[in-house]
Amino acid sequence: MKIQPVKGTRDFYPREMAVRNWIIDGWKRVSVRNGFEEYDGPIFEYLKMFQIKSGDEIVEQLFSFEDRGGRKLALRPEITPTLARMVNQQINSLPRPIKWFSVPRLFRAERPQKGRLREFFQWNIDIIGVDDVIADAEVIFTTIDYLREVGLKPRDVRVKISSRKLLASALRNIGISKSKLDSLYGLLDKYTKLPSDTFEELLCEQVPDSNMTKKITAFLSAETLSGIPKIVGCNPEVDEAIQELACLYDLLRQMGVSQYCEFDMSIVRGLAYYTGIVFEVYEFAQELRAVGGGGRFDNLLRDFGGPQIPATGMGMGDCVLEILLRDRKLLEKNIPAVQLEYFVAFVDKEFFQKAIEITMKIRSTGYAANFSYKAAGLSKQIKQASEQKVKKCIIIGSEIEKNQLVVKNMTTGEQKTVGIDKFFAELNPELR
Amino acid sequence: MKIQPVKGTRDFYPREMAVRNWIIDGWKRVSVRNGFEEYDGPIFEYLKMFQIKSGDEIVEQLFSFEDRGGRKLALRPEITPTLARMVNQQINSLPRPIKWFSVPRLFRAERPQKGRLREFFQWNIDIIGVDDVIADAEVIFTTIDYLREVGLKPRDVRVKISSRKLLASALRNIGISKSKLDSLYGLLDKYTKLPSDTFEELLCEQVPDSNMTKKITAFLSAETLSGIPKIVGCNPEVDEAIQELACLYDLLRQMGVSQYCEFDMSIVRGLAYYTGIVFEVYEFAQELRAVGGGGRFDNLLRDFGGPQIPATGMGMGDCVLEILLRDRKLLEKNIPAVQLEYFVAFVDKEFFQKAIEITMKIRSTGYAANFSYKAAGLSKQIKQASEQKVKKCIIIGSEIEKNQLVVKNMTTGEQKTVGIDKFFAELNPELR
Repeated sequence: MKIQPVKGTRDFYPREMAVRNWIIDGWKRVSVRNGFEEYDGPIFEYLKMFQIKSGDEIVEQLFSFEDRGGRKLALRPEITPTLARMVNQQINSLPRPIKWFSVPRLFRAERPQKGRLREFFQWNIDIIGVDDVIADAEVIFTTIDYLREVGLKPRDVRVKISSRKLLASALRNIGISKSKLDSLYGLLDKYTKLPSDTFEELLCEQVPDSNMTKKITAFLSAETLSGIPKIVGCNPEVDEAIQELACLYDLLRQMGVSQYCEFDMSIVRGLAYYTGIVFEVYEFAQELRAVGGGGRFDNLLRDFGGPQIPATGMGMGDCVLEILLRDRKLLEKNIPAVQLEYFVAFVDKEFFQKAIEITMKIRSTGYAANFSYKAAGLSKQIKQASEQKVKKCIIIGSEIEKNQLVVKNMTTGEQKTVGIDKFFAELNPELR
Repeated sequence: MKIQPVKGTRDFYPREMAVRNWIIDGWKRVSVRNGFEEYDGPIFEYLKMFQIKSGDEIVEQLFSFEDRGGRKLALRPEITPTLARMVNQQINSLPRPIKWFSVPRLFRAERPQKGRLREFFQWNIDIIGVDDVIADAEVIFTTIDYLREVGLKPRDVRVKISSRKLLASALRNIGISKSKLDSLYGLLDKYTKLPSDTFEELLCEQVPDSNMTKKITAFLSAETLSGIPKIVGCNPEVDEAIQELACLYDLLRQMGVSQYCEFDMSIVRGLAYYTGIVFEVYEFAQELRAVGGGGRFDNLLRDFGGPQIPATGMGMGDCVLEILLRDRKLLEKNIPAVQLEYFVAFVDKEFFQKAIEITMKIRSTGYAANFSYKAAGLSKQIKQASEQKVKKCIIIGSEIEKNQLVVKNMTTGEQKTVGIDKFFAELNPELR
């Protein structure tokens, strides 16, 4: 009976696993050096939990099920609701600011597309308890710190930054009523994704006044912060939001990452829950979906039954990132070929026991070693070592009586006889 | 709206995450040095896949659901079926022996109990393509290599070894018909878990002949291999199986781990699919469930539609292991307190920009660093550094004009003024 994997999922053979580990290890290393602590939650939660933040429409994108106790559960499509639940549970004992990261495996019951699978990994970083824009800067810095670390240059990726606060005050100034904002965000988020006439048609449906729609599209394509008041009109809220963006940019410059950043008022983020700075990371030519994105969500903890505590964060999935890294030839270059350090072969069955002993001793120093399981001919064993992409082959033969073994460099083919004690002295893990 | 986690799942706050990472990192490190390569599969697979190996009874223990396309899917309760599927898919291109490991997250819809949760991690190692008992020895060695590495001694854990081949031939010799073996295994597996009178009652139901039941219980409690033929009678198959166990023990001795091992004929493993050596790892006093277990399953790949290729492997979950490690005080000792290397404080707002600059430079050397997000008083910043369990605090003040900063050791309280260049020269990651 032949069985297939479920569509939209991935099998990670050792080669693919090496890529996945390299990406995730990078996320973890960069998070830790930027002062984030790791957390994780369960793979499934109560279904209703995912509706609080993202509304009923998320339910269609969920893998949901009932357990035997009749509980309605769902595989997590994101980790932010779990973060809110966990932080609220221990809100009084957690010192602030809370700087946490996670690399959850997430699930979305969507049709698989390029860069969008039904099962994926997502790097999440969040800072909770800081209302100052410095926290937004720190989140964006950490995001760029990773992109820089893996070799992506400002010519490869752009962090496009905007502000929900500015967007909201600009739209209000233009004359949009507060109650219309949430539904408008969903459309404005598609400004660069839809053909412009389709976008304008949809915009006219929501905003019939053509003077207002002109101002909105002019705002979305504004090229400088300073030009915005001229488009949408002055008021203190617009000024304040522009000031905040300018301050963010100053901080990013001081942090040394401003060359990756640009303002782009068309960055809206679809979800209703953002409240301040928002940003998305795109491949420069913008031919791929967003590599990642995030922003400020000051009301989420409150919406999950906790106190009102400011928060800002970022999420980056592994699928689009991997496509981008592969396209820029940054994967092959950085990922070590699966390589075993040593393979221990023996010239005759009588040396089998000694081969086991030497293998175990090599392993105990921390180096990876295999040995031949079969009393096959030496050339067959060397072939096996070569298939296993081993760096060096140890050959146990009659030299063992003089306490020596043969070390064969599998890259150069060079062979030399070495005393066992000397061999192990040089393996000393302290010297690695 | 307050939301609870689902029962039988765990929230991993940074402290619990550190434990999980330490356990999993150990599993990975030991696997790699013993020559295993990492793989993984999807979290969910077709429901029917899990029935092939474990029969219909497994379905009750599964979290199963339908996707929008009407596919019957289930969260994986084990990874061996995925392993069989993946190996079969690429059977012609994979060099043998295949030595693979994985640390899958698994799910069982059971009532949560001590050491048994609905969501857990399990270390799996498997060797495919070797019929010799050397592969079984290698799997047992690698298992013990991990136990030894985390500080568990032979007085803490025992690897109890038996043989399905011996069990089958002994039962046949005693007079049990071949067709009855599979159902009998399920019962014999409970020999040490059930009260002895309950066990004997159930055994009599399956085997009415009291002479035969006596031989079976005598066999299960046999103290030496050599005594077994006297109990069950001689025949070539019994002899061969005993020889194989003796050979396995010799290998484990040569590998230096026999002090952790003992024969125990009552180790049966419930599942029908084992075909040779079987073993389980128990805490010495056997007050906990098995820490792990495994054995040979030479028919599994064939049952999954592939060729008949021999295989042997082991699985070890994180729940019982963690209880054991905590009980033996091996967790606190080995897991580093969550510690940030540096916290950068500043004596006045005018030094904020310099503090950012120094923080970013520390991070770029690979060390973890945070800085104060607020222009709070210095003592408040130092308090924050202390809450973050930081090792050293960098204080930026007027010394910066002379290119100096203050380094405060947060353990000893000692403070010294250091030149910036000297500070960074000593941070050189090469010297770490």
